[in-house]
Amino acid sequence: MKIALDAMGGDFAPERPVAAAVEALARFPQIETLLLFGKEPEIRAELKKLGQAKPDSRFEIHHCDTVIEMGDPAVESLRRKKNNSILRCIEAVRDEQAEAAVSAGHTGAMVAAATIRLRTLPGISRPGIATIMPTETNLFILLDAGANLDARPEHLLDYALMGSIFSEEILGYKKPRVGLLSIGSEDVKGNSLTKDTFKLLSAAPINFVGNIEGRDLFERPVEVVVCDGFVGNVVLKTSESIASAIFHWLAHEMKKTPLRMAGAWLARNAFRAIKKKTNYEEYGGSLLLGVNGVTVIAHGSSSVKAIRNAIREAVEAVEHRVNDRIIRAAEIAGAHKEAKADAVAA
Amino acid sequence: MKIALDAMGGDFAPERPVAAAVEALARFPQIETLLLFGKEPEIRAELKKLGQAKPDSRFEIHHCDTVIEMGDPAVESLRRKKNNSILRCIEAVRDEQAEAAVSAGHTGAMVAAATIRLRTLPGISRPGIATIMPTETNLFILLDAGANLDARPEHLLDYALMGSIFSEEILGYKKPRVGLLSIGSEDVKGNSLTKDTFKLLSAAPINFVGNIEGRDLFERPVEVVVCDGFVGNVVLKTSESIASAIFHWLAHEMKKTPLRMAGAWLARNAFRAIKKKTNYEEYGGSLLLGVNGVTVIAHGSSSVKAIRNAIREAVEAVEHRVNDRIIRAAEIAGAHKEAKADAVAA
Repeated sequence: MKIALDAMGGDFAPERPVAAAVEALARFPQIETLLLFGKEPEIRAELKKLGQAKPDSRFEIHHCDTVIEMGDPAVESLRRKKNNSILRCIEAVRDEQAEAAVSAGHTGAMVAAATIRLRTLPGISRPGIATIMPTETNLFILLDAGANLDARPEHLLDYALMGSIFSEEILGYKKPRVGLLSIGSEDVKGNSLTKDTFKLLSAAPINFVGNIEGRDLFERPVEVVVCDGFVGNVVLKTSESIASAIFHWLAHEMKKTPLRMAGAWLARNAFRAIKKKTNYEEYGGSLLLGVNGVTVIAHGSSSVKAIRNAIREAVEAVEHRVNDRIIRAAEIAGAHKEAKADAVAA
Repeated sequence: MKIALDAMGGDFAPERPVAAAVEALARFPQIETLLLFGKEPEIRAELKKLGQAKPDSRFEIHHCDTVIEMGDPAVESLRRKKNNSILRCIEAVRDEQAEAAVSAGHTGAMVAAATIRLRTLPGISRPGIATIMPTETNLFILLDAGANLDARPEHLLDYALMGSIFSEEILGYKKPRVGLLSIGSEDVKGNSLTKDTFKLLSAAPINFVGNIEGRDLFERPVEVVVCDGFVGNVVLKTSESIASAIFHWLAHEMKKTPLRMAGAWLARNAFRAIKKKTNYEEYGGSLLLGVNGVTVIAHGSSSVKAIRNAIREAVEAVEHRVNDRIIRAAEIAGAHKEAKADAVAA
């Protein structure tokens, strides 16, 4: 298997992506070649720091002149910055030099590059970022987690269909329940986007359970949560932030008396178990569903471990033939185009 | 002071609102009269259960024929259901029979009733729900938390101005920092609403610090967080849900071994401190900022304690003359109408 990694992607690049690449080669023997895209001298310097003055033969370094910075406008910078590492990663997938592209860089640029160069699957109008989130009892997919920031109802229908297939085929849930993230469980509650989407999802060939609220996400979880990319991204980042804030407060409170400190020590494995479960580094990256090629997007602030796990996710997505399965979802979507139109008209 | 309470508001009415009313009279001597709006026989039956066969003389029961149910459409049901408890509460404020209205009922109906009957303050186009949220180091206001579900940039400007004044005058923060909730800290990141709002807030007479992300809410908190009502409501409910889910998981993990159980017992006060801090019941209700009268909105699922605290919040808002201060904010907003127009044109 060949994987393309954006060595310049993320707030701590190329240091962390290159370190993650070295770890990934050590852990994932399925990877025959790991293509590193970025500034060659910098990549070689990082490899040297990690004891690879002569890089592992499974690395293939592809020099890129430019890097898309986090503050750059997505589409314009793809055009302006010739030979940038994000576009080159995606083009490697398009040209079948790699089976998947991974980046912790500019999300908007990654989405735009994948949409333009790989194109969307037939029947899918916009790709969505599918993030796996943990609850006490299950894993759910939240999508879109930030690809499409001004979504329309028909995009959310595509997300519901793709999310259902992903949950069923990859996570193994039978007839996964799909919830529309809104502000009340009643179907009259919501904004204009969710009200129109509610009608489309009601007519779709999925196990739609109606609106779900923020409070249901972790307390009465469904398997697929559909929302527009702006809301999804805010929810995702808020969730991560709260979990870590609560542990931080607890640690602070625990240090206030020796008895509490003793208690915390005795119960330390309980804390570790939950911390591991709520740590996004364990999940690493998110698949961009709906484009014709495996694309994994990681947080800009990703640790080495998180980027390594994003590479693992790309490997698994290729192994599970995620894309063939999404094409099935796209076909279902196509077959229900008329149902859509009817529902909208109703 | 006279407070109007919707005795039929919430998922457990009239039981919980009436019980909260009884507790409020016992705790808040400032309340001379607590006006209870709802079905008189049911209210009297609840009072009787609580040992008040002859109600406290500070109660004033106002019979209403109808109740707006959670699944009702907001505006239409206000019109269709004559003499409903939400509208009557709000009208009591309009007619100066009460200084504040409190309800745990239908949020949309409460917002619509307040907007129609009390009207917005001069210079404010739409009211917003201001929710106080705790972090380890401060309290911040999130607004709008669900009044205005399809907000426009000029509404968000009003929220920023009102939130600033509220934070400064009521919570005591000097030059409170105002952040726009978005999906990246760079000003080019966001959806069309936040991008346009960013320009307005940059030109406004507030301490605007730019975009903040979901992850900043609790880790690098500002004092005022501005967002549209849909996003705010989802964030609020998600936050509450995660805190409670994490404690639930922890409790589960703690019970796995006797050592962990002993540890949990030793550290129990640390848990209690955090649980109290993250428990929305402690905060109770949220003020609807921007209407000409004190209006407090509580969760539909509120406990007795949460509704009692919502009544306390109404009392404090009256005592702090919140509305006079918001009028100042509205005047500032008025003075900056031209700045707005310039910024939009730019």
